[in-house]
Amino acid sequence: MELDFCFHNPTKIYFGKGAINNLKDELKKYGNTIMLAYGKGSIKKIGLYDELMKIFNEAGKKVVEFSGIMPNPTAAKVKEGIKLVRENNVDFILAVGGGSTMDCTKAVSMGAANDVEFWDYFYMNYNPPKNKIPFGTIVTMVGTGSEMNGGSVITNEDVKIKTGVVYPNMLPDFSILNPEYTYSLSKFQMVSGICDMMSHIMEQYFSKPDTDNVSDDLSEALMKNIIKNAYICIENPNDYNARGNIMWDATLALNTLIGCSKEGDWEVHNIEHQLSAYYDVAHGMGLAAISPSYYRHIIDFGLSKFKKFAINVFGVSTDNKTDKEIALEGINKLEKFFKNIGATTTLRELGITNKEELNEIAKTCFVSNSAYKVMSIDDIKAILQNAF
Amino acid sequence: MELDFCFHNPTKIYFGKGAINNLKDELKKYGNTIMLAYGKGSIKKIGLYDELMKIFNEAGKKVVEFSGIMPNPTAAKVKEGIKLVRENNVDFILAVGGGSTMDCTKAVSMGAANDVEFWDYFYMNYNPPKNKIPFGTIVTMVGTGSEMNGGSVITNEDVKIKTGVVYPNMLPDFSILNPEYTYSLSKFQMVSGICDMMSHIMEQYFSKPDTDNVSDDLSEALMKNIIKNAYICIENPNDYNARGNIMWDATLALNTLIGCSKEGDWEVHNIEHQLSAYYDVAHGMGLAAISPSYYRHIIDFGLSKFKKFAINVFGVSTDNKTDKEIALEGINKLEKFFKNIGATTTLRELGITNKEELNEIAKTCFVSNSAYKVMSIDDIKAILQNAF
Repeated sequence: MELDFCFHNPTKIYFGKGAINNLKDELKKYGNTIMLAYGKGSIKKIGLYDELMKIFNEAGKKVVEFSGIMPNPTAAKVKEGIKLVRENNVDFILAVGGGSTMDCTKAVSMGAANDVEFWDYFYMNYNPPKNKIPFGTIVTMVGTGSEMNGGSVITNEDVKIKTGVVYPNMLPDFSILNPEYTYSLSKFQMVSGICDMMSHIMEQYFSKPDTDNVSDDLSEALMKNIIKNAYICIENPNDYNARGNIMWDATLALNTLIGCSKEGDWEVHNIEHQLSAYYDVAHGMGLAAISPSYYRHIIDFGLSKFKKFAINVFGVSTDNKTDKEIALEGINKLEKFFKNIGATTTLRELGITNKEELNEIAKTCFVSNSAYKVMSIDDIKAILQNAF
Repeated sequence: MELDFCFHNPTKIYFGKGAINNLKDELKKYGNTIMLAYGKGSIKKIGLYDELMKIFNEAGKKVVEFSGIMPNPTAAKVKEGIKLVRENNVDFILAVGGGSTMDCTKAVSMGAANDVEFWDYFYMNYNPPKNKIPFGTIVTMVGTGSEMNGGSVITNEDVKIKTGVVYPNMLPDFSILNPEYTYSLSKFQMVSGICDMMSHIMEQYFSKPDTDNVSDDLSEALMKNIIKNAYICIENPNDYNARGNIMWDATLALNTLIGCSKEGDWEVHNIEHQLSAYYDVAHGMGLAAISPSYYRHIIDFGLSKFKKFAINVFGVSTDNKTDKEIALEGINKLEKFFKNIGATTTLRELGITNKEELNEIAKTCFVSNSAYKVMSIDDIKAILQNAF
């Protein structure tokens, strides 16, 4: 607990099979016009769309639909949402889906409520939003933790930049989490989400300071719970308890709790964002492919922590091994875990064929200034080549 | 994650050496008259009183003092505070101290802002408060977690009842936590606080349901962190990092996080509250004396959980032992931990000499309906006698 911190997370979480029953009362707090933001229609398949329309109807709300939000949501899509909000005087946005829908909704909330060009103002120049259109979320896909944080990641296709911002007042007013909504996710989506939440924890855990910190202990508990329940979820997609643990793990992984008194690294995310901007790879799969390569590259700069990780998270034995051998075994076990649950752990498996282009991408990556090792372009090139 | 839950905790936490620097901006949000609530003057000894007066002065605030709040704060003291608030039209209360000061402040906040007889209305009949006098806290004593929850425990001396309530809108608006403020605590106070936070975690951990739940994993992480850092704090009271971990552990132990999807037990607290009502023992020390006796008494009703506790928290080996032997060894190690840090682990050590009277006290204890074993009066008598 070396570093001072502020923890403030007022998002109200309704969790469980009956969580949706709280929606009607929550909606009473807002004006009459609601924008329903969602993706490509999976909410219709699981019956949630009809259920929501019934609730809106009973609550006497006017509904504006904002659909077709894509994975890696684009600046163009955000503009479409801002236009809809303004034309219809939307009072409240309900984002129903995964991280893409929630992140896009946050961008629309900021963009519509403030008289600025949203991309430059919020995403390039980091001006915090003064106003917001209030919004809540219903989570149908796990991983991003966007349901309980102020983060929003948007891809601008024109300039090939995918970037994330975090603003305290972009926390959802409330979020509804029912593990049953995730039953119909494809294995690919579920695995991608699991890799994403593991990465969120590691980005905070593998960072300075490394003096004893309960945040690190909580991170280890979350990682162990994820690993244990990931195998159950993959084996039996309808295991409510395992889905529930994974869903809550994902939220706690990125609601700022385990970041208390930690600097955070986020270099794996920086690199993945640029991969996604070039190739539109699934975010979690990109993270799974980059993480082992990145951590092997910086292992000497955080050796004691990588050793702790190996022992406490993956139960690596220490007999007759050097610290580095123990640490490396931990990273190998992480990679094996990703493989075992069906993640792609090389860039080639992600469909990337142009090894040369990776060197160009390396030049476009943001560099973290709080990592164990500050990256040069050559470092990033090596990490990407080793992940190929 | 079997049970549905709602998690909502909007208290803003400022943590660290510079945390107090945020007070002036926070106070701008409230009216002109501030009531400073504190105990028996330790805030003067550590220089905090003078620092606060300077901040109030600079902020142009009028200050009303409400001092002399005692351990196990009484209903009579609460009435004194309510009178002060009403006479002075207090806009905001700043509670500076430990759980007693914070809990008393909450009772005053409820009592002064609602036109009811506070004890009967809030503490006996559990009517949630409609209104509140806004309040914040500055924590100088660790253990209760009152800085980030809606709980308040008050003792009514007339009827010999010490009881706690929890109301969602009794969360502090903000809390300032600086581990340095705890340097001057006596060893007795510090140990008592450590026993209190351990008990808070165990009351939630040793409760149904026992299906895999990340809340239990987080509880184990917190307990291990407390045990590790408790020894350091006792050895070297000025170890900032250890004090910081313990301080944040205490907050997380009772801010509803680890209670997500858990029923909670709270029988140890129920029994201790009645001990305190009769003998005015230090809360944490009372808990340390009762816990091992209580857990041995119910061991067969939650055997798998007591075994898990022994292995995961205290590293008990499993070779050639029955589940019950493993479980018992865990409870023995818990008792030894309490002893090692200097807690009193028998009622006799607490100064209680009348063994017969314990049977009378047993009859006055509230009974938890969510414990592994629902208590009869005979159960409670046995637990108290075994703790003697």
